[in-house]
Amino acid sequence: MNQKGVFITFEGPEGAGKTTVMNELAKEFTAEGMDIVTTREPGGIRIAEKIRAIILDNQHLEMDARTEALLYAAARRQHLVEVIKPALAAGKIVLCDRFVDASLAYQGYARGIGVAEVWAINEFAIADTMPDKTLLFDLNPEVGLSRIANGKNRENNRLDKESVAFHEKVREGYHLLVKESPDRFITIDAEKSQDEVKVNVRNILKNYLDTKMN
Amino acid sequence: MNQKGVFITFEGPEGAGKTTVMNELAKEFTAEGMDIVTTREPGGIRIAEKIRAIILDNQHLEMDARTEALLYAAARRQHLVEVIKPALAAGKIVLCDRFVDASLAYQGYARGIGVAEVWAINEFAIADTMPDKTLLFDLNPEVGLSRIANGKNRENNRLDKESVAFHEKVREGYHLLVKESPDRFITIDAEKSQDEVKVNVRNILKNYLDTKMN
Ligand SMILES: Nc1ncnc2c1ncn2[C@@H]1O[C@H](COP(=O)(O)OP(=O)(O)O)[C@@H](O)[C@H]1O
Ligand SMILES: Nc1ncnc2c1ncn2[C@@H]1O[C@H](COP(=O)(O)OP(=O)(O)O)[C@@H](O)[C@H]1O
Ligand SMILES: [Mg+2]
Ligand SMILES: [Mg+2]
Repeated sequence: MNQKGVFITFEGPEGAGKTTVMNELAKEFTAEGMDIVTTREPGGIRIAEKIRAIILDNQHLEMDARTEALLYAAARRQHLVEVIKPALAAGKIVLCDRFVDASLAYQGYARGIGVAEVWAINEFAIADTMPDKTLLFDLNPEVGLSRIANGKNRENNRLDKESVAFHEKVREGYHLLVKESPDRFITIDAEKSQDEVKVNVRNILKNYLDTKMN
Repeated sequence: MNQKGVFITFEGPEGAGKTTVMNELAKEFTAEGMDIVTTREPGGIRIAEKIRAIILDNQHLEMDARTEALLYAAARRQHLVEVIKPALAAGKIVLCDRFVDASLAYQGYARGIGVAEVWAINEFAIADTMPDKTLLFDLNPEVGLSRIANGKNRENNRLDKESVAFHEKVREGYHLLVKESPDRFITIDAEKSQDEVKVNVRNILKNYLDTKMN
């Protein structure tokens, strides 16, 4: 439990519907009078944005996987210090679009650096600020990738070029994390329609926040 | 022991004479036919240079101490992968002007993040490539700082503005590291004249390399 606020993270592969559902629910909850902050790394934090620019530069083919993991942890730290911690300290409900579990599933598990190894640097980065709850948007990676392929105006960067096999490993990685932290994770069936997913997540969050706030 | 090559690091505070002595001895050893590589982070490695630029930007007053430590570890990783590891694999003698111990003494100990914590992220960064030997240029910090104050054309960045008290803590930090790894460290009295220090370091390195190479 994070001091006064509540810290919720949205996890899962590209095209799972995390951003869409998070933003729609944030609007609804705010309209109902809840004190919601939505964010995602690097979150407009200038130091974190500069770090991300190094990671995502298509020219940097020589980037080592461990360098990349350390840079993600550094950007995470700065975003946490400047955005998440102050919001939690002010008693807000923070909805964050991906956080530490993405690094564990992508870098740690799918890229093969090791979940324990990537956890070590992220433990350093986040110290005591773990999410209170994490919603895992779970679906067949091909479904997610095909949703993105249909979309327009998607950024085309180094990370979008990975194969379906890689995304299968990411999914496996997330499933391992759920097994390790069953109390923190809630798995969402993200293959359902956008409206079904939204209603499902809304009910889960309402329930959780009701228990927490009262 | 690093595969085929030998990895030597030079550590100590600003103004201790590390760079001067390292460069002079590298010239002498090279003239004697030894296969020497001298380097220092970020070492002209473009990713590491870009990371360092973020760290050293005087504007970044909001930079968190842990973000900074993660960025140093990231730059270290990339420099290691692109410069140090290939040189060691080719059987060269690598002399590196500061390495992991600088982070442990400065960030871990003097800035108070914790030596074990900073070691965790650096262990991730360097994995199995620890220095074979580390020369600690040890001296009263005021002596080192006054040498720099006398020098011309020194860069003036955020890190040069720390007080003597801070540098006393750095020295304490280095002394703790020597206690923890007495076999790896050799302490050099760096208050002696430049020539005395050079002769001392030359003899120590010659002895060590002779044993190692034969
Ligand atoms: N449940 C769903 N079924 C079908 N399409 C969806 C669903 N959820 C989101 N989408 C669409 O899929 C695309 C990716 O959604 P997005 O929210 O950006 O996913 P993510 O943030 O998880 O990558 C968008 O075009 C969105 O409208
Ligand atoms: N033993 C010494 N005694 C006096 N001055 C020294 C000594 N070693 C180096 N110097 C001078 O002190 C300054 C800092 O030396 P430098 O090698 O750059 O130190 P470091 O790399 O450890 O910061 C330079 O002007 C150098 O000429
Ligand atoms: Mg998204
Ligand atoms: Mg120097």
